Amino acid sequence: MKTTLTRRIIILAVFLLTGCLGRVSDLCADEGMWLFNNLPKDALKKKYGFVPTEKWSEHVMKSCVRFNVGGSASFVSSNGLVMTNHHVASDTLYKLSTKENNYAADGFLAKNLEAELKAPDLELNQLVNIEDVTKRVNDAVKAGMSSSDAAAARRAVIATIEKEAGEKSGLRSDVVTLYGGGKYHLYQYKVYTDVRLVWAPEAAAAFFGGDADNFEYPRFCLDVTMFRVYEDGQPAKTPHFFKWSKNGADEEELTFVAGNPGRTSRILTHAALRYQRDHRLPFVLDFIRRREVLLQQFGLESDEAKRRAQDNLFGIQNARKAYLGKIQGLQDPSNMWAKLKSEKEMIAKVKADPDLANLADAWETISSVQKKRIQSMKRGISLRTKLFTIAQQIVQLAAENEKPNAERLPAYRDSARASLEQQLFSPAPIYPDLEQAILGDLIGRMCEMRGAGDPLCRKILKRLSPNDRAAAMVSGTKLMDVDFRKELVKQGKSGISMTNDPMIHLAVLVDEEVRKEMAAADELSEMEQQAYAKIAKAIFATQGTSTYPDATFTLRLAFGPVKGYMENGKNIPAMTDLAGAFEHEKSHGAKGDYKLPATYHAAKEALDLKTPANFVNTTDIIGGNSGSPVINKELEVVGLIFDGNIQSLTGDYFYSEKQARSVSVHSNFIRDAMKYIYGAERIVNELGR
Amino acid sequence: MKTTLTRRIIILAVFLLTGCLGRVSDLCADEGMWLFNNLPKDALKKKYGFVPTEKWSEHVMKSCVRFNVGGSASFVSSNGLVMTNHHVASDTLYKLSTKENNYAADGFLAKNLEAELKAPDLELNQLVNIEDVTKRVNDAVKAGMSSSDAAAARRAVIATIEKEAGEKSGLRSDVVTLYGGGKYHLYQYKVYTDVRLVWAPEAAAAFFGGDADNFEYPRFCLDVTMFRVYEDGQPAKTPHFFKWSKNGADEEELTFVAGNPGRTSRILTHAALRYQRDHRLPFVLDFIRRREVLLQQFGLESDEAKRRAQDNLFGIQNARKAYLGKIQGLQDPSNMWAKLKSEKEMIAKVKADPDLANLADAWETISSVQKKRIQSMKRGISLRTKLFTIAQQIVQLAAENEKPNAERLPAYRDSARASLEQQLFSPAPIYPDLEQAILGDLIGRMCEMRGAGDPLCRKILKRLSPNDRAAAMVSGTKLMDVDFRKELVKQGKSGISMTNDPMIHLAVLVDEEVRKEMAAADELSEMEQQAYAKIAKAIFATQGTSTYPDATFTLRLAFGPVKGYMENGKNIPAMTDLAGAFEHEKSHGAKGDYKLPATYHAAKEALDLKTPANFVNTTDIIGGNSGSPVINKELEVVGLIFDGNIQSLTGDYFYSEKQARSVSVHSNFIRDAMKYIYGAERIVNELGR
Repeated sequence: MKTTLTRRIIILAVFLLTGCLGRVSDLCADEGMWLFNNLPKDALKKKYGFVPTEKWSEHVMKSCVRFNVGGSASFVSSNGLVMTNHHVASDTLYKLSTKENNYAADGFLAKNLEAELKAPDLELNQLVNIEDVTKRVNDAVKAGMSSSDAAAARRAVIATIEKEAGEKSGLRSDVVTLYGGGKYHLYQYKVYTDVRLVWAPEAAAAFFGGDADNFEYPRFCLDVTMFRVYEDGQPAKTPHFFKWSKNGADEEELTFVAGNPGRTSRILTHAALRYQRDHRLPFVLDFIRRREVLLQQFGLESDEAKRRAQDNLFGIQNARKAYLGKIQGLQDPSNMWAKLKSEKEMIAKVKADPDLANLADAWETISSVQKKRIQSMKRGISLRTKLFTIAQQIVQLAAENEKPNAERLPAYRDSARASLEQQLFSPAPIYPDLEQAILGDLIGRMCEMRGAGDPLCRKILKRLSPNDRAAAMVSGTKLMDVDFRKELVKQGKSGISMTNDPMIHLAVLVDEEVRKEMAAADELSEMEQQAYAKIAKAIFATQGTSTYPDATFTLRLAFGPVKGYMENGKNIPAMTDLAGAFEHEKSHGAKGDYKLPATYHAAKEALDLKTPANFVNTTDIIGGNSGSPVINKELEVVGLIFDGNIQSLTGDYFYSEKQARSVSVHSNFIRDAMKYIYGAERIVNELGR
Repeated sequence: MKTTLTRRIIILAVFLLTGCLGRVSDLCADEGMWLFNNLPKDALKKKYGFVPTEKWSEHVMKSCVRFNVGGSASFVSSNGLVMTNHHVASDTLYKLSTKENNYAADGFLAKNLEAELKAPDLELNQLVNIEDVTKRVNDAVKAGMSSSDAAAARRAVIATIEKEAGEKSGLRSDVVTLYGGGKYHLYQYKVYTDVRLVWAPEAAAAFFGGDADNFEYPRFCLDVTMFRVYEDGQPAKTPHFFKWSKNGADEEELTFVAGNPGRTSRILTHAALRYQRDHRLPFVLDFIRRREVLLQQFGLESDEAKRRAQDNLFGIQNARKAYLGKIQGLQDPSNMWAKLKSEKEMIAKVKADPDLANLADAWETISSVQKKRIQSMKRGISLRTKLFTIAQQIVQLAAENEKPNAERLPAYRDSARASLEQQLFSPAPIYPDLEQAILGDLIGRMCEMRGAGDPLCRKILKRLSPNDRAAAMVSGTKLMDVDFRKELVKQGKSGISMTNDPMIHLAVLVDEEVRKEMAAADELSEMEQQAYAKIAKAIFATQGTSTYPDATFTLRLAFGPVKGYMENGKNIPAMTDLAGAFEHEKSHGAKGDYKLPATYHAAKEALDLKTPANFVNTTDIIGGNSGSPVINKELEVVGLIFDGNIQSLTGDYFYSEKQARSVSVHSNFIRDAMKYIYGAERIVNELGR
């Protein structure tokens, strides 16, 4: 955050000189993932002459919904119609698909309400209230507490706040840590668990250009899917929703993106970034590539194997490109140099001010935590397959249930129970062959990380090779059966001690060490949180509170105009059109991921090829924003975020509006495709266009 | 080696009991990659009643040729016709291919001698003489020398032996280290550098089933390519060659494989295997997967990009499967337990014998070397692209040329000069886009390994990101031009100090550290070599000298019958046939790598579908054996090695004939394919069949 804040200081200094006249739009960065209770009203007014009213911001907030699987969305009708990305929906599309009906690949359209398909385990959250609880959280941590005591006290007060708020309101209530520990806000959500699939195009339309085009621009993707939320078996009434714009996004138009950016790391110190650059990101990338190769191999066996691995593979390839972008940004010496410079300046300023001098040790604390992270990085126990995760949740739930709510691990608190059960008892398909391949690889990887002679590894292997052991466990477990899971949860600890299920045994076997690792990680996080809270104080003290915190997968507002950029001396226009999609297909030989679906060709005559397809704007987004509506000042949908360009990938650490752009599907494309390609008049009518 | 030798002791013990009667074939392992000057005559006589004569073994030795790019081959006519695998030839096939004439994918047939295509930089070696020089090498190392002095003395005497022998005979003369340092033999080769492509089938025929089927069985691959060696512009006269068998390999028939297994590690101690299992192999696999993903991404851009990356990708995918097999073998606790047990027995035996007790510290020495290897593993400088390798060779050659021959790095000794120049001045195509992608990734990887703040990394980057720096160097270098390379080599050190070529600058920049790393590695190797020499002495003393050393990419003989195996309770027959190939295509939907070439379908009527396609035998082989002829007692070609099954992949460390099998193309398949599918009567006639 400090680099970017420093950049803002420079900009403000220039303001003073120029009076923000004339060249303002060149000078003011459209940076920021703003809290809905702290919108950048001054900046918006100064740069765009627009001031969001309370009503405006409440309408935006309540028209948005979050996909708990990791994405954003919005209501686009008063009858609970929800728009998101195909790639956000894909987890559900795969769960609804079978060998015979591959909705994930071939698309889906419900002819009427009755035909809308219930998702097995989706949870959607609509944010309805935000409250600052910083004081109550911080008061629970007493001076002189050890890091682990402080972490426990903080966890306990957060659990209590969540439980009280949840019981009082009936809403999902989460305390969110902001500014790396500088503030704590209570977020309250209305929860929807009856979510049904309405329409999805083919994967070839949504992901046109495939992995090669991912994070690139120009693009031509129809990355959209429609769901509907239900209550009591009927479409939910959703008075807050975005109307559909008649003309959609226009060049240079000011737009807003409301969604849930997952995680940024702009507050990270130079030492923390070095840890990311030299240790954490290489470690994660090795894992990602390993999984990518494994899934590709798995898919070579047959078309059905390929289908089973596809959802995971898509996510992994997406992550690989995103992480490559991150590490490449950090390996660019100019970025790190700028960070170091601004950090040195900040530290000097803090040390020079007697009121702030007590904050100056924060950077050193964070640096020392990174060294500990390096040591523990390879000790983590990662056996996360679907079956193992279920086993672990059952085992941990039984133990946590016996503790008071405030002392439980966050995932097992009362406030999270409904979400947990939604996942744990999901009837979504699990493929034993895929489970076995992944588990065998994860056990092998754990043996590599710890050395195969490690006592825990030896206990897991039971004298078999990793693959043979995985095969024995996957074929021996009964956890595929949802009723068996429910029975085990009901029996609690006694059921677990009685069962001979090998996957449960595995979860029990590693539990002690998993908890030890979690406690150690918590302690480091607490040390960091206290240090980042100090840094946040230093920022507030020197730069004021009109800043935004790093992303936390909670609702934020970003803004900026529709705008192209220059690349290698070439102008990249903001908009593409449908004609471009057909040309893109042709120039790549209409092969593989560059083949448009047959439905496009069948509808080609009916379509206006000048219809905008995708566009870019300067809004500050990151992974998690996928599926966010792009709206105009009049609260109308003009587009749908689905990607960022390759230059935006360093946005995790540094915002820049020089070339970094968000990529959206144009609202006209969505409307016309539903109408002319997919025959979804029912939905188009519901949108009122 | 010790596990396997111990196994042999057990077997021999059983011999004594049973007198090797009746169930002999169940008891005697067909283990061993035997030296041509120490063939297992007793074992062959006992088990198969066959004693190879001197003449027999000389004929085999001189009928074989080695591909220096990493493969085996044999003469199959008196006119220099050479048979190897398509995948051994592929390096050359890609170098001869262009966007327009893709011989690597589409195959090639020279209608007549004139049409045979000269390979740009192939070197083939025919072994003609072996001499034991152990005493002379060991005498050069004096008692009390430090490891680095000993390494230097050993290098110097080896260089002198090679130079003297080369000058005296005009033959390529290499001193080979055997038994990890227990023996040194001088190998002398006749060298062929005018090698021409005669015939290659389509990649779809050679690699039918692709990466999915690689290392699997049953198989149906026509993994063969024919070359011809020339001397003075005429087909070379090759009086030693293998005749073509009329009927080819038969079930249960005793067969021999003569070829150049690249590297095995059977002598490794338990500590050395733990280093491989927990450190080295995971490190290499991470690199392999990284390159695999990079090349796949590169190939997504276009068909031509895919073609450019294909050769490298094939090799990488092959290596990934092979290394996975290795690590999985080591992660199987039963294998490591057996190794540990036999090692403990050996150490006890050595300690109990006063004549051997001075050898007992060898295992501890090796263990201590492994710890140092772990520390230095990530410090190595690996920037190996084609252009960087050329730059590095030019820079190092200039420096080494100024030293006496015996003190030079091995690659720059007089005895290796011809081979070096063959590579260095090769006109084979270099693709700047691919070079740039790989170099950028390698620089990025180096920054990860050392930390991007490492002084050498910073010097390399020159304030640019890894990819930008790679782009600047690849676009700025003139090393694509062979004449420029020749000129730089001619000018030597002064030319290098004058040039502003960025790739040469890079090679100069890293040279000091590269040499430091090499020296450190040499010192560790010397410590290991002395220790393994002790272990070899212990083996000779306790088990006799009728053993084979680990593979060293020199000519070895393996033996064993054509024989199927049991897998998951199912009998896998030794042979497949052509009908099976068509069925295999059909059962996989005739898609992707499971699509047979159109030429097969066109010739289907003419073919006898009962013709054997591939077969397995129990011969002990490993990577490097690819392209080895399978011959019978009568010195006829009955097949062509091209793979091992998945169970054979642990053969690097442990031989087993339970399921591990070598996989060959049947000689009848090769002959009939040339005749009926490819219209290569000219070649079939030359084979005399």
